[in-house]
Amino acid sequence: MSDQASVLAERCSAALHAHDYCAQAMGMSIVEVGPGHAVLRMCVRKDMLNGHATAHGGMLFSLADTAFAHACNSHNRRTMASAASIEFVHPAVEGDVLLATARCVQQGRRSGVYDISVCRDDGTTIALFRGRSLSTDQPVLEE
Amino acid sequence: MSDQASVLAERCSAALHAHDYCAQAMGMSIVEVGPGHAVLRMCVRKDMLNGHATAHGGMLFSLADTAFAHACNSHNRRTMASAASIEFVHPAVEGDVLLATARCVQQGRRSGVYDISVCRDDGTTIALFRGRSLSTDQPVLEE
Amino acid sequence: MSDQASVLAERCSAALHAHDYCAQAMGMSIVEVGPGHAVLRMCVRKDMLNGHATAHGGMLFSLADTAFAHACNSHNRRTMASAASIEFVHPAVEGDVLLATARCVQQGRRSGVYDISVCRDDGTTIALFRGRSLSTDQPVLEE
Amino acid sequence: MSDQASVLAERCSAALHAHDYCAQAMGMSIVEVGPGHAVLRMCVRKDMLNGHATAHGGMLFSLADTAFAHACNSHNRRTMASAASIEFVHPAVEGDVLLATARCVQQGRRSGVYDISVCRDDGTTIALFRGRSLSTDQPVLEE
Repeated sequence: MSDQASVLAERCSAALHAHDYCAQAMGMSIVEVGPGHAVLRMCVRKDMLNGHATAHGGMLFSLADTAFAHACNSHNRRTMASAASIEFVHPAVEGDVLLATARCVQQGRRSGVYDISVCRDDGTTIALFRGRSLSTDQPVLEE
Repeated sequence: MSDQASVLAERCSAALHAHDYCAQAMGMSIVEVGPGHAVLRMCVRKDMLNGHATAHGGMLFSLADTAFAHACNSHNRRTMASAASIEFVHPAVEGDVLLATARCVQQGRRSGVYDISVCRDDGTTIALFRGRSLSTDQPVLEE
Repeated sequence: MSDQASVLAERCSAALHAHDYCAQAMGMSIVEVGPGHAVLRMCVRKDMLNGHATAHGGMLFSLADTAFAHACNSHNRRTMASAASIEFVHPAVEGDVLLATARCVQQGRRSGVYDISVCRDDGTTIALFRGRSLSTDQPVLEE
Repeated sequence: MSDQASVLAERCSAALHAHDYCAQAMGMSIVEVGPGHAVLRMCVRKDMLNGHATAHGGMLFSLADTAFAHACNSHNRRTMASAASIEFVHPAVEGDVLLATARCVQQGRRSGVYDISVCRDDGTTIALFRGRSLSTDQPVLEE
């Protein structure tokens, strides 16, 4: 990938994150981003636990979905998720540090498929997410 | 459904919600619960928005997933989500009041399938969620 | 629904089936079709079994997918499946008569969501299918 | 992987295929199989076309599902699909030669997640399949 594409991906990511109040409130940080891929980090807090004392499925989904957004908006085309599925593999608990790694599996003219894995920092797979994206003709970055 | 089953569903729901710090932090309330079904309510706050200024997919998923949990734990068997899929139909925005309605489509000995719709209070469909559950042999309620 | 819409649905269905060599080869028959819904019937043959001596998942999917096609093409707009998921609930065996019932859950301008249940003729649920459709601007019926 | 594991995978695959009347009727051949992975080949015939003159989604699913079966049964534990999702990327037409490549993404004690890509022999992605497996305690091979 060219440096130009990498710089564009980083600018789109920064623009997204600046208005992503949800990701900010959840304490997500962007570890790495590039054309079609992204890595995000989040620590499981007490207010992210469900009634079974494990990380709420919605919190795992939110992390994966945000990594997906950074990956699929990296070419400066405003892109939304149209659908997603998630497989819960292993429960996460309070204090766990999670990494979501998103990669583009397939990108067509408008729709794409992205795979995101959510792992604990010791490498244990927590969840597997697959998202379908739909791109608009609008840019992510304002001129 | 008997009154007894309804009472049990309400007790399981209350026990779940008491420890569901995530649902509490998101301001979810339980509108209705019964054997195999549940209705939850949540208002979209600013800290639930993504970088496109709409409700974060993860927040819609969290609401649906929580309604799913109340429906599939209603028979006093500790039950987890093993997988889920979501279709995003219409964006929600700040201030929208959302209702997630969960119903059991199929319940086997251990695994079940539940459908959850997320609608705005004017009836507009926001998202459609389908979850697969896996039941343990443990009760939800402590003796 | 008006009679006109029902007649249109039946004409679209007949046009689809006339060229659906796969559905014909599998012995599917159209039990009922209307605007946004369809019921198809198929008997599980020996050449539809997998290595575990049960109906091949692909054969159950094919039946559901075909019912989906009849339901989502019923308004005379050429419509394709963009994605689908299936939950396998109960195995089917040779000789089982299966009914796939498709209904529209949500239909937007271009994309829609349809639910299809596959049941044995005694009412046992065999599989649950959810499909996402994408409509073109072309008609199903040639003028 | 040891030679022993590879030999076992091939024996399980041969045993499955010998009774997979559906895969045989569809003309599938096993190109390669090993522990947790498999590659299958199929040519799109006229009796695999749908009403839009493209390969029926159910036929693409059947090919992917069969590759999935060979991959997840490769350790001599009888394993079934509990659920699957498929994304349709590009239509296939009569005469296309398709390859389905299955790989294990995650395997737990009983349940696993497998990804299968269906590509045309020129490398074009036709469909992406993700399957969830459930293993029994029974062997694939009879003693």
